[in-house]
Amino acid sequence: MTERVVLAYSGGLDTSVCIGWIAEETGAEVIAVAVDVGQGGEDLDVIRQRALDCGAVEAEVADARDEFADEYCLPAVKANALYQGQYPLVSALSRPVIVKHLVAAAQKHGATTVAHGCTGKGNDQVRFEVGINSLAPGLKCIAPVRDYAMTRDKAIAFAEAKGLPIATTKKSPYSIDQNVFGRAVETGFLEDIWNAPIEDVYEYTQNPATAREADEVVITFDAGVPVAIDGRKVTVLQAIEELNKRAGAQGVGRLDMVEDRLVGIKSREIYEAPGAIALITAHQALENVTVERELARYKRQVEQRWAELVYDGLWFSPLKRALDGFVNEANQHVSGDIRIVLHGGRAVVNGRKSDRSLYDFNLATYDTGDTFDQSMSKGFIEIFGLSSKIAARRDLG
Amino acid sequence: MTERVVLAYSGGLDTSVCIGWIAEETGAEVIAVAVDVGQGGEDLDVIRQRALDCGAVEAEVADARDEFADEYCLPAVKANALYQGQYPLVSALSRPVIVKHLVAAAQKHGATTVAHGCTGKGNDQVRFEVGINSLAPGLKCIAPVRDYAMTRDKAIAFAEAKGLPIATTKKSPYSIDQNVFGRAVETGFLEDIWNAPIEDVYEYTQNPATAREADEVVITFDAGVPVAIDGRKVTVLQAIEELNKRAGAQGVGRLDMVEDRLVGIKSREIYEAPGAIALITAHQALENVTVERELARYKRQVEQRWAELVYDGLWFSPLKRALDGFVNEANQHVSGDIRIVLHGGRAVVNGRKSDRSLYDFNLATYDTGDTFDQSMSKGFIEIFGLSSKIAARRDLG
Amino acid sequence: MTERVVLAYSGGLDTSVCIGWIAEETGAEVIAVAVDVGQGGEDLDVIRQRALDCGAVEAEVADARDEFADEYCLPAVKANALYQGQYPLVSALSRPVIVKHLVAAAQKHGATTVAHGCTGKGNDQVRFEVGINSLAPGLKCIAPVRDYAMTRDKAIAFAEAKGLPIATTKKSPYSIDQNVFGRAVETGFLEDIWNAPIEDVYEYTQNPATAREADEVVITFDAGVPVAIDGRKVTVLQAIEELNKRAGAQGVGRLDMVEDRLVGIKSREIYEAPGAIALITAHQALENVTVERELARYKRQVEQRWAELVYDGLWFSPLKRALDGFVNEANQHVSGDIRIVLHGGRAVVNGRKSDRSLYDFNLATYDTGDTFDQSMSKGFIEIFGLSSKIAARRDLG
Amino acid sequence: MTERVVLAYSGGLDTSVCIGWIAEETGAEVIAVAVDVGQGGEDLDVIRQRALDCGAVEAEVADARDEFADEYCLPAVKANALYQGQYPLVSALSRPVIVKHLVAAAQKHGATTVAHGCTGKGNDQVRFEVGINSLAPGLKCIAPVRDYAMTRDKAIAFAEAKGLPIATTKKSPYSIDQNVFGRAVETGFLEDIWNAPIEDVYEYTQNPATAREADEVVITFDAGVPVAIDGRKVTVLQAIEELNKRAGAQGVGRLDMVEDRLVGIKSREIYEAPGAIALITAHQALENVTVERELARYKRQVEQRWAELVYDGLWFSPLKRALDGFVNEANQHVSGDIRIVLHGGRAVVNGRKSDRSLYDFNLATYDTGDTFDQSMSKGFIEIFGLSSKIAARRDLG
Repeated sequence: MTERVVLAYSGGLDTSVCIGWIAEETGAEVIAVAVDVGQGGEDLDVIRQRALDCGAVEAEVADARDEFADEYCLPAVKANALYQGQYPLVSALSRPVIVKHLVAAAQKHGATTVAHGCTGKGNDQVRFEVGINSLAPGLKCIAPVRDYAMTRDKAIAFAEAKGLPIATTKKSPYSIDQNVFGRAVETGFLEDIWNAPIEDVYEYTQNPATAREADEVVITFDAGVPVAIDGRKVTVLQAIEELNKRAGAQGVGRLDMVEDRLVGIKSREIYEAPGAIALITAHQALENVTVERELARYKRQVEQRWAELVYDGLWFSPLKRALDGFVNEANQHVSGDIRIVLHGGRAVVNGRKSDRSLYDFNLATYDTGDTFDQSMSKGFIEIFGLSSKIAARRDLG
Repeated sequence: MTERVVLAYSGGLDTSVCIGWIAEETGAEVIAVAVDVGQGGEDLDVIRQRALDCGAVEAEVADARDEFADEYCLPAVKANALYQGQYPLVSALSRPVIVKHLVAAAQKHGATTVAHGCTGKGNDQVRFEVGINSLAPGLKCIAPVRDYAMTRDKAIAFAEAKGLPIATTKKSPYSIDQNVFGRAVETGFLEDIWNAPIEDVYEYTQNPATAREADEVVITFDAGVPVAIDGRKVTVLQAIEELNKRAGAQGVGRLDMVEDRLVGIKSREIYEAPGAIALITAHQALENVTVERELARYKRQVEQRWAELVYDGLWFSPLKRALDGFVNEANQHVSGDIRIVLHGGRAVVNGRKSDRSLYDFNLATYDTGDTFDQSMSKGFIEIFGLSSKIAARRDLG
Repeated sequence: MTERVVLAYSGGLDTSVCIGWIAEETGAEVIAVAVDVGQGGEDLDVIRQRALDCGAVEAEVADARDEFADEYCLPAVKANALYQGQYPLVSALSRPVIVKHLVAAAQKHGATTVAHGCTGKGNDQVRFEVGINSLAPGLKCIAPVRDYAMTRDKAIAFAEAKGLPIATTKKSPYSIDQNVFGRAVETGFLEDIWNAPIEDVYEYTQNPATAREADEVVITFDAGVPVAIDGRKVTVLQAIEELNKRAGAQGVGRLDMVEDRLVGIKSREIYEAPGAIALITAHQALENVTVERELARYKRQVEQRWAELVYDGLWFSPLKRALDGFVNEANQHVSGDIRIVLHGGRAVVNGRKSDRSLYDFNLATYDTGDTFDQSMSKGFIEIFGLSSKIAARRDLG
Repeated sequence: MTERVVLAYSGGLDTSVCIGWIAEETGAEVIAVAVDVGQGGEDLDVIRQRALDCGAVEAEVADARDEFADEYCLPAVKANALYQGQYPLVSALSRPVIVKHLVAAAQKHGATTVAHGCTGKGNDQVRFEVGINSLAPGLKCIAPVRDYAMTRDKAIAFAEAKGLPIATTKKSPYSIDQNVFGRAVETGFLEDIWNAPIEDVYEYTQNPATAREADEVVITFDAGVPVAIDGRKVTVLQAIEELNKRAGAQGVGRLDMVEDRLVGIKSREIYEAPGAIALITAHQALENVTVERELARYKRQVEQRWAELVYDGLWFSPLKRALDGFVNEANQHVSGDIRIVLHGGRAVVNGRKSDRSLYDFNLATYDTGDTFDQSMSKGFIEIFGLSSKIAARRDLG
């Protein structure tokens, strides 16, 4: 019986060529699987047909947008997940949901191998392969670009030679990955890290310097989940989509950073994530109101580790599950409204309301109604500082 | 011999009244000490004379601006210190330098007690008293507002009865603390955390929504220290002052947050810190280029603890010293130029240059010259993910 | 209506005197509540009657031994909780369960206040009062020894004057707190930290230096819960009790340490916790076999924070609940058998067996059957070490 | 010009065969380098001659025992470095010092490559190669056992065919690595993790169950450095050697654990490290007396990361250097005497003395002389527990 390979298929030139390339390299039948995580672009049926036209024995397409939003983006919001304090893990979050569909297809079709279109120097190869290994330890992984030296030029030649129904125009100067949670751009001239990005690289966001009216939005959370925008009920997917539009129109969510890749190198990356940044900003502000201090302090460390793990491709790892245990418990009371002004590239919280609030007006106020017992402070200070004071007596001596 | 009390003197109504109030409560002689940490306002000589006119037996004023910048603000920049990920510790940084001057004055003048004007429900009382205890474990601390019930109304009545040379106009609606590193504002109507701040609360920053030309600035660091701006050599103090002006003019550095106080309550705070935010943003970006990944990941945790410790008033603690050991070592190679665009409330880094850079174009590029050996990745992924894979074999079983 | 005070009652001299003392100081009626956490000693009914004889208007006794083992000791075992890496939190664990019963009694009897017998310089006052505040924020707390200057001498005089039915013999040289999870001893001559403890201070453990036969025990865990000993099913309480006996007989579980109290001072403490130490040792060894590496590494940090929180009296805090979310998830697969040799003061694990094991003989063995693909290592090493290598190229240059 | 390879040479069969094997595989000249880290065994001159007899073009031997103790073991003691809370990093510490000598030899002799005898599934290959990459990024690394399939059987055949002057007796059942800081043993029958070790596997330690007299030792530290034993001045090397003898004679320092290797698998390891365990135990006890609480709590996390980094072969990494900055600062006051009883496999601290002590008898005592101001506690407790109390009011509502 012929071996079968499931291929992560995008509909573009590279993975279209992969279908035939893998068949030639391995003699296997190729099953193309395309997963919609909100990347936009062509219709899924068109993509499906192209895979078949390019030689796939089977082609499957899945609308995973709600699944992606609910099971991958939402945990990231709950964890305020920002790698290096900035990057909301756009691509890193989409890989595990794609992996899930690839593995399901492999099991359904009796494939022994999963193929993806990544190169050998990025993070995504790790996220695909470690993910696949963690969901189906018996599956093999191949990456034609990395393992079979399928360069861009060779891919174009292959497509032309075989008459594949796919445009082989010269490569765009941009290498792009996008989904509903954001968009990543790499391009040659930004590999000189002194060069500034130009407007041309952006698609999800307008120029923040352009004059326009501010947009004020109220986001309602229930136990960490965004459930309404300006009072209208939304799914998580809808929340992200609406905020992509509104925050994107105000130039919110652009990032320009030098990033530490898992494979040990630093790379320059441009991201746009208007919805993600708006949601996380609002969620953090609501946590400031509803999460107790010591839990908040510890959660910041957990958030960092969560983001690193997911960045590093360990979504399906035991540590990720245990951190989720913490994060979910910590989000139990993160309910209420956040008012946020989107304008000029900024997402600024200026109002919070919550019936789970720990902000106590009567303890906080300096006006009438103050219930804070200031006579307690003397004792607190004395004992809080005692171990430092004892050390000082020694160290100054 | 009469006891002596050193008072942290600001020149304002409250601490002017404190001079006589303390004398009446304790029978001690009061020595007023005013420390210039860049808070602006009246001339130090005027303040000094007022203290004497209000009954101080001695009055000392100290220009501690460079000391504050070099020994307190700079370590905060090296540690990218942002409490709750936002607040650059403006007031928290100034307390220890003031404490140092108070303690020196107490030792010089044979005082047994130090007094300050804080209330009993804020962080500053802790910072003053734990700091004093740590530099001079034998000194006593008093706070007339907290310990002798010196309310605002009683202070006004006292000033008028004694004919003190100080205005007793009705209290401003704002409670303000400011120094060269930033400005903190509290005010009654913002104690309703749903209310948005109004332009009137700001002084260090212009309205970010006002149309104006962007300002591009290049900040040069040497081992974590800002040493030049646009190629002109600067002291740390000059760097902060110039960036306060330029970033402030662009509306950069406004913060509106609900904060976890050390005394256990949440409070609403408005901050402006244009220079601090610009410097820390630039410093972080340069670290991204010059600090190795594992060190960078660990440093983020150290930064959080550093900020919490300083916020909590433990500047002079043994842990703070040991964390500084880490932070200084980590800053050894943080040298180079950062280009940053100040505009519309944003401080956006868009260029980095460093001869200590760890960014390696040839490893990062996808173009000609790529030296990354992609054949290594297969083995890396297999072993990097092995422990997760073994766990998966069990957990899926 | 007369105010009512619930008193944490032990049956000893101090708390017996407290009944009348509180009544005199406050005019309130006193309700005595004794909680059995396995401290041994007198019958609960005897204690109950004595409380009434000493003037309590009500007296309640509760056998909380299983509750203590299941809900307080067990989480500590799952968290391998050892404060300062050594102390299994014996007293710190018992306070919250006692607090729960005190608060329940206060609510049942309409009391406004809870009283306890602690001094003002230890950890237990914090654990009692913060616990009570967290379960019933409206209750007041009093501690006659601390708040009403009820010294030992005065207590004896009071007891004699009132003819209380309690022995007023001279105080034992030892200050002891004990429960089923262990025993704590403080005594004057050990306050000189150069002095060694003498055999007389120990009760739960035999002298480890005495020659005797070793005892080998197999402890079975299911998801972190000890469920059998030598194949016999046990409750958690039974597991602790049996191991107290068997490990205690071998001198296991003695601790002599200088400890950092929450109130800022260091104190010398002697502990005996044979069952706790045996259980935690076994549990750790089983985790080494069943918990994936990254989870195991992170859990060590969580364990430390868990132990500090509980030591610091924050059992009922939000952070504690979130850490439990992590710890429980991490214990999901901690199932299997640990063989442990108890002898000469040592508890030495020398065998592990688990059907949830992640130890893979075929990957680990150097003999026939080795399935580890060594060709993967080259790539792993190259990329794992790449960021260090790039930094080295710079730093050595 | 012929290429040159520097080989880490032990004098044993495997590395003796490597000399000729590498020459045949690569055509290079082989330079043998043996480093004495206290592993005992043959005289260095004998080893040197054997290398030459086996075909090395040059052979160097270095007595690195003091260097190893001072620059590698001592930092581990200061960091109380115990991987997984148990293993004192015996082999992990020796690799970097050997690497330093290999790199120096390579630079001296113009070699392009360094070779070592490790297999492809252990930690040591990583430690060698990442270390070499970090000290000399231009050097290549080879491992004949891993890269050229040099199995034990083939090695014996090679040695016999070439008449190498080395015994080719059947392999010992034990795979051993040892140095002055300890000894590691792996062996086939212990790969079944239910099997207990037998006395035969141990060499550095006597059976702890054998009856004998206890040995009491006083170790003096100065700023974290062991400087005297029983009042006699010692070097670090002498301290380790003497404690190896005395603690080893009492059966102290045996470990039996399942360990998480860097390469992703779990392995069963037996260690003996009597001197290391005695020193770390004493050092920890002295820290308990001389290190302030918050510093002590944070240092435990730093220690864990330090041990993981060194275990993982990242001795020469930037993070390691920054952690050392912390650890050295934290050890500044760790000076004084620790009395420790070595007996029956236990190393029990029972006395501490230090003129840098933070233990304050007058604050700690419950007897006459108590200076602790208990009236401060009420305020401390109220404010310390306030954030939990506010959360409780919400959560119980």
